[in-house]
Amino acid sequence: MAELQYEAEAPSGNYYAADLQAVFRCGDDSVTVKGFYAGDGIYKLRFLPLRTGIYSYSVSGIISDQGEIYAEPADESHHGIPQADGTHLRFSDRTLFTPFGTTIYALAHQSDELTEKTIESLATSPFNKVRLCVFPKHYQYNHNEPALYPFLTLQGKTPDTVSRENGPLSQITEPLWDTSKPDPAFWDAFEEKLIRLEKLGITADLILFHPYDRWGFSILSREESMQYLDYAMRRLSAFPNLMWSLANEFDLIPGRTMEDWYAFENYVAENDPFHHMLSNHNCFVLYDYGRPNITHVSIQTRDPSRVLSLMKFGKPVLIDECGYEGNLEETFGCLSGQEMSDRFWKVTVSGGYCTHGETFVNYDSDSPDDEVVFWAKGGAIIGESPARIAYLRSIIEHLPGPVEGIAGSGFAPMLYMSREELEGLAGILPPAYARIVRSVGEMGEEERLYHLTTESEYNGHVGELVFIRYFGRDIHSRIQMDLPETHSYTVEVIDTWNMTRSVAASGQSGVCKIRVPEKQWLAVMAVIEN
Amino acid sequence: MAELQYEAEAPSGNYYAADLQAVFRCGDDSVTVKGFYAGDGIYKLRFLPLRTGIYSYSVSGIISDQGEIYAEPADESHHGIPQADGTHLRFSDRTLFTPFGTTIYALAHQSDELTEKTIESLATSPFNKVRLCVFPKHYQYNHNEPALYPFLTLQGKTPDTVSRENGPLSQITEPLWDTSKPDPAFWDAFEEKLIRLEKLGITADLILFHPYDRWGFSILSREESMQYLDYAMRRLSAFPNLMWSLANEFDLIPGRTMEDWYAFENYVAENDPFHHMLSNHNCFVLYDYGRPNITHVSIQTRDPSRVLSLMKFGKPVLIDECGYEGNLEETFGCLSGQEMSDRFWKVTVSGGYCTHGETFVNYDSDSPDDEVVFWAKGGAIIGESPARIAYLRSIIEHLPGPVEGIAGSGFAPMLYMSREELEGLAGILPPAYARIVRSVGEMGEEERLYHLTTESEYNGHVGELVFIRYFGRDIHSRIQMDLPETHSYTVEVIDTWNMTRSVAASGQSGVCKIRVPEKQWLAVMAVIEN
Repeated sequence: MAELQYEAEAPSGNYYAADLQAVFRCGDDSVTVKGFYAGDGIYKLRFLPLRTGIYSYSVSGIISDQGEIYAEPADESHHGIPQADGTHLRFSDRTLFTPFGTTIYALAHQSDELTEKTIESLATSPFNKVRLCVFPKHYQYNHNEPALYPFLTLQGKTPDTVSRENGPLSQITEPLWDTSKPDPAFWDAFEEKLIRLEKLGITADLILFHPYDRWGFSILSREESMQYLDYAMRRLSAFPNLMWSLANEFDLIPGRTMEDWYAFENYVAENDPFHHMLSNHNCFVLYDYGRPNITHVSIQTRDPSRVLSLMKFGKPVLIDECGYEGNLEETFGCLSGQEMSDRFWKVTVSGGYCTHGETFVNYDSDSPDDEVVFWAKGGAIIGESPARIAYLRSIIEHLPGPVEGIAGSGFAPMLYMSREELEGLAGILPPAYARIVRSVGEMGEEERLYHLTTESEYNGHVGELVFIRYFGRDIHSRIQMDLPETHSYTVEVIDTWNMTRSVAASGQSGVCKIRVPEKQWLAVMAVIEN
Repeated sequence: MAELQYEAEAPSGNYYAADLQAVFRCGDDSVTVKGFYAGDGIYKLRFLPLRTGIYSYSVSGIISDQGEIYAEPADESHHGIPQADGTHLRFSDRTLFTPFGTTIYALAHQSDELTEKTIESLATSPFNKVRLCVFPKHYQYNHNEPALYPFLTLQGKTPDTVSRENGPLSQITEPLWDTSKPDPAFWDAFEEKLIRLEKLGITADLILFHPYDRWGFSILSREESMQYLDYAMRRLSAFPNLMWSLANEFDLIPGRTMEDWYAFENYVAENDPFHHMLSNHNCFVLYDYGRPNITHVSIQTRDPSRVLSLMKFGKPVLIDECGYEGNLEETFGCLSGQEMSDRFWKVTVSGGYCTHGETFVNYDSDSPDDEVVFWAKGGAIIGESPARIAYLRSIIEHLPGPVEGIAGSGFAPMLYMSREELEGLAGILPPAYARIVRSVGEMGEEERLYHLTTESEYNGHVGELVFIRYFGRDIHSRIQMDLPETHSYTVEVIDTWNMTRSVAASGQSGVCKIRVPEKQWLAVMAVIEN
């Protein structure tokens, strides 16, 4: 990221909508970026070169300047911005990006000491994407008052107008924040964290709005929200390791209409010169992932079998909340390590991308609600799933390409077919099989959905090179793979929990039967031999 | 069961539709039963007295006779016929019947030796309902040729016209069976098995048709099928320990239309003088359980969360196939003991009734397909779930009444409410909660269904006397129960897998928090103290 810095008189009114922009040109490429006021009489303009070479720039507005920067070839650890590529993700340099996400919602609002610990944890973790919020979070196990806020308060107001003891938002009877005055100290500190993540090769999945609030950030007017977005886009868009999440559980934010969301979505899409990925995360109601600005599906669901049907959007499917490994009283945070690992395997083999979170609390402590829970604040990772997610990642990253899901075992492929397609299939089958196919055709949508959601086996492939089948909780003594007749394959059995793999058979093609140990959490992977 | 027996000339033509009936009268009660030809010049009429006292009878048709029988009070082990009572089941004497079912499809077609072993297994099992077929079964792990068939063959034909090696049904090019000539030897042997079950207190969930066939029983004409039903109704209706299952996977039987099924359903309903329970079991397409003749829901689904929505019919919900405990290659028979036990708990706590099956095969044997698999043929029970099902049964049978399900934790109850109901609720809640409620209102049906199918906690109650909550795979360090404020309760923690229970707290009412061990398969049960 290149940064131009100028001294000039501080704005007399608002900090947003600064009249400062620059055009960066390299060959045919031309990108216009907007500058922002960074405090202390400093203005900045940020630019991310996505090709190697000499860029000329021309600054206009309250400052006029011209110059050149030379973009050197990136080292091996830098690949540019993650972008959607069909149902997968690639960085700007076309390197495949396989997100293995985790969640630290209030990472930006913790002490330096805790942040160091978090960074240490992330450094040895398998995670290369973190969901985190810009605004502080008020929720169970999320109560600490942050040191800094994205805006300064209105004159005469202080954040402790809103006390922890009182219900979220209910105490706010008059405006508290001056959204025209972002606090550069907050944004500097926030960016430090983004840079720390970047150094670890971690993409920040940045949550712009959320409902867990006692300060009033979730009930800003649309105009105030736009001022916030204006400043955030100017400051952050040139970071490479970013993707935008309009909200966490957008549908739970009081008072927001779909028109608000579409306005925010359009604003981000139009004002991010580098076109980072953009989605919106739900609680109950799904956002419309078919909208052109939306680059990927980012949903909350406990059900990995949804990945295949969400592929209808032709975009990457990120299961950005599927429950968390932990011991919480709440139903969202009580998965065993095996369950969390299981969901990663199911989502990954289906061609989607899964997101982790960790929620362990010691209810014997003096104040369980103030415990440092990784999913909320960071700190140590103590769960059992990250080692298994690392093992999965090591397998997936050695494949010759991204995994595509295959509708599961047995009858599942038929569940997607239209009545006409099924009738056509039935016409060429013996009567007993034709009857099965016709029965599927007679299923209502609800019935089909139930069949999908209770699918037990998960199948994926990389072209004809690799076929993977994951069995989850099912225990088989023997399994079947349906491989192409035209090649021969070596079949490995993978114990996804104990993290071992062994060759079970080689020279396999067509329908092959493989004896497997009678245990849960197994996968088999057939790799082409020549 | 009372039986009248007469000698008379054997029928010259068909055995069905014998002109023989009797009216049994006791006070205001009057029941007409039809007789049947039992072979060897013997005709029989069967009657099941459902009250104590003197019944007069009058036989007419090819035989005329009159007389009386005295129905003594039943001993403690006999309660009459299971009947639907709202969403629960009671025997004729109003004793509650809580089915804990298992599956031995081809029980009727195995050797005496194996049958003895099966009866021994059942005697020490928790099962009080068995699903079994009248016709022999041709399917994976179901290939033995039975000794007897329900009908005699047509002249010059033998059952080995159809050989095991050939595909099911495809070899049948001309009629093989004389449906006008049921084989009394088959029916005598079959009834012996029903009697053995009755002595164990086990209800036979009798499957009248099924698609797994190499003999042609599934492709009889409607008229032939009606002849079969005529004879079956005459012989079997007076057995107390019966319920009718029109079919297993009715929708997979080739060539059958819904009109056929409705004709069969009406025939059974009209020709069973004792009105046994009646349903029809599906593979893909659900039967219409709202039909007046249909007394209960009998479905195949792997998803226990469906129980609550199936309660809409106001009839008992029997999950008669949810996967089987075993190690099969096939996806229907690869549940761990924990998974099978888990489904029983989920279904039971939801107010439904679950059915077991066991499918272990030794793939190292010379012919895995000929192994004796309990679900197919009976024999020994070796799985781990039956002990847990017995434990569950012991708990449930000591409750003061049948369990009613409660839509699960958190938001689930809202998932059933109409938009209007939700709007009404939102109107009386603080803004943040109102937003949640409105968001549920905006969910499409598909979204709501997904939420239901991924519900993780299961709640049930017996009035205000008992509240049960089952956590399945979720691991909590502390749980919450929402008990009535008006009573005090003792709360027990039940380890459903290790089959232990211990009191965790007493004197509880309202919202109470209970510390629980951090393990899977726990339930908590709050029992009223006074």
